[in-house]
Amino acid sequence: MKEHAQGETRKVVTPSRKPVAFSIAGFDPSSGAGVTADIKVFAAHDLYGMACITALTVQSTLGVRRVEPVAAETIRETLACLREDVLPAGVKIGMLATAEAVSEVTRFLSEAGIDPQRVVLDPVIRSSSGKELLNPEGVDRLRLELLPHVGWVTPNIDELAVLTGIGTSDKEVIPMAAARLQVLANAGANPKLHVLVTGGHLHRPDDFLLTPDGKSLWLKGERVETQSTHGTGCAFSSALLCSLIEGRVAEEAAAEAKAYVTAALQAAYPVGRGKGPMHHLFVRRSG
Amino acid sequence: MKEHAQGETRKVVTPSRKPVAFSIAGFDPSSGAGVTADIKVFAAHDLYGMACITALTVQSTLGVRRVEPVAAETIRETLACLREDVLPAGVKIGMLATAEAVSEVTRFLSEAGIDPQRVVLDPVIRSSSGKELLNPEGVDRLRLELLPHVGWVTPNIDELAVLTGIGTSDKEVIPMAAARLQVLANAGANPKLHVLVTGGHLHRPDDFLLTPDGKSLWLKGERVETQSTHGTGCAFSSALLCSLIEGRVAEEAAAEAKAYVTAALQAAYPVGRGKGPMHHLFVRRSG
Repeated sequence: MKEHAQGETRKVVTPSRKPVAFSIAGFDPSSGAGVTADIKVFAAHDLYGMACITALTVQSTLGVRRVEPVAAETIRETLACLREDVLPAGVKIGMLATAEAVSEVTRFLSEAGIDPQRVVLDPVIRSSSGKELLNPEGVDRLRLELLPHVGWVTPNIDELAVLTGIGTSDKEVIPMAAARLQVLANAGANPKLHVLVTGGHLHRPDDFLLTPDGKSLWLKGERVETQSTHGTGCAFSSALLCSLIEGRVAEEAAAEAKAYVTAALQAAYPVGRGKGPMHHLFVRRSG
Repeated sequence: MKEHAQGETRKVVTPSRKPVAFSIAGFDPSSGAGVTADIKVFAAHDLYGMACITALTVQSTLGVRRVEPVAAETIRETLACLREDVLPAGVKIGMLATAEAVSEVTRFLSEAGIDPQRVVLDPVIRSSSGKELLNPEGVDRLRLELLPHVGWVTPNIDELAVLTGIGTSDKEVIPMAAARLQVLANAGANPKLHVLVTGGHLHRPDDFLLTPDGKSLWLKGERVETQSTHGTGCAFSSALLCSLIEGRVAEEAAAEAKAYVTAALQAAYPVGRGKGPMHHLFVRRSG
């Protein structure tokens, strides 16, 4: 990069602003998941990412060792501070850790006036290594308080079961459980909820989309043979948000997010001794 | 990205591993500085970034509002957890916030067996908006405990003055103050310290390099007319680490890091109402 001329003052023409996306999620030191991964996903879609950390985790590719929630007051201050500075084009919500964090994020969404159709909730409840990432009171508030404020929710089959009380080890039951989740949101006065159930844990990783007007669709998935599966759920929900910000309709946005994750899995290179990260930045759409 | 074939299991050839760089620094929600910015700088140089957060900050492009240090125990656990998983090719150290954090990082460096010539210390003491980012006891420990374990230190002129007691508003005094910092490190038994004084606050933003064998060099800088100067010091030290990991000799590494920052400033687009971020990912060297 030495060809850049040095020694002279140079005026730079300012390009147009890029949309800013917020990630409200946990911090993963290995950067396969959480806010740092989300910021990479946003960058891959040519969006600028800002973030509010809800919890520090001690983890590596070998699993989550400990979770340290951030104080609700700090979450509140962080979101207020960012909101005074920029208006986000959309918000992705990941791990929240505590009931208090769920309430802070709910308050933020209702006060900030962000279009719910640009809010994607990944209802993280448990890590793939089995660690609790949202306590039971938090799950209740997520369902009762937060769900009414989001346009999209992206549970995996385990999270869908916890949220609806309907076990979904059988693929045939997923549509019914997704509809049940919509009913729960409707009771909270949100008639506009998209439910997108991620099937990464299914034998064949198909996703199921249910739109607010009752259309449903299976998105056929491709199993990628790789160890680098850490944070696929995080990346999927963030990529979905990016596609929504770009103005895609529901089915297109879901398909694009799925294609992004598949490609990032295929592009992954080994990192660490356990489940490594995907290659979030395998592509960037612009300079 | 819809051209990716779906529906079939596909074997992926695993590319070779990329080097992993660690950032030990603060968290900036606006992502112009701190660990999320560092991870973007690493990615721009085709390195994979992992991070240990030393302090949460509440800040935006308008300045630092509050600093919340992370417990020393969490820092220790995080670094131990990462170290069991991967061997970093290099470490960048930024904001440390507390004396306890300085000691934890010192312990990590001495136990992990990382080549000091692949450790870059950006001795962050105060934010450009005037907030204290390392307490006085921390500054003492940084000088006495940490400095002997690093191969590179990148103070700006204010930090150089605090570390050496030699005021450096006069450009002519910088070489003497840099030499004084080497003497202090030598007393701590580190005869291999490179001092790279960043001149971003000078009328003409030249940097000064002093190598362990006493060679010195002014790197001529270019003033870029932009509001997007948030986190330039963070990005410079991280880019320097990247060039060192790539095997550059001292003068080349310093020049490359300076060229990276200049180009990232030139490529910046407006974000927020204050001092926005550089465009860290204006280039990526590979997929």
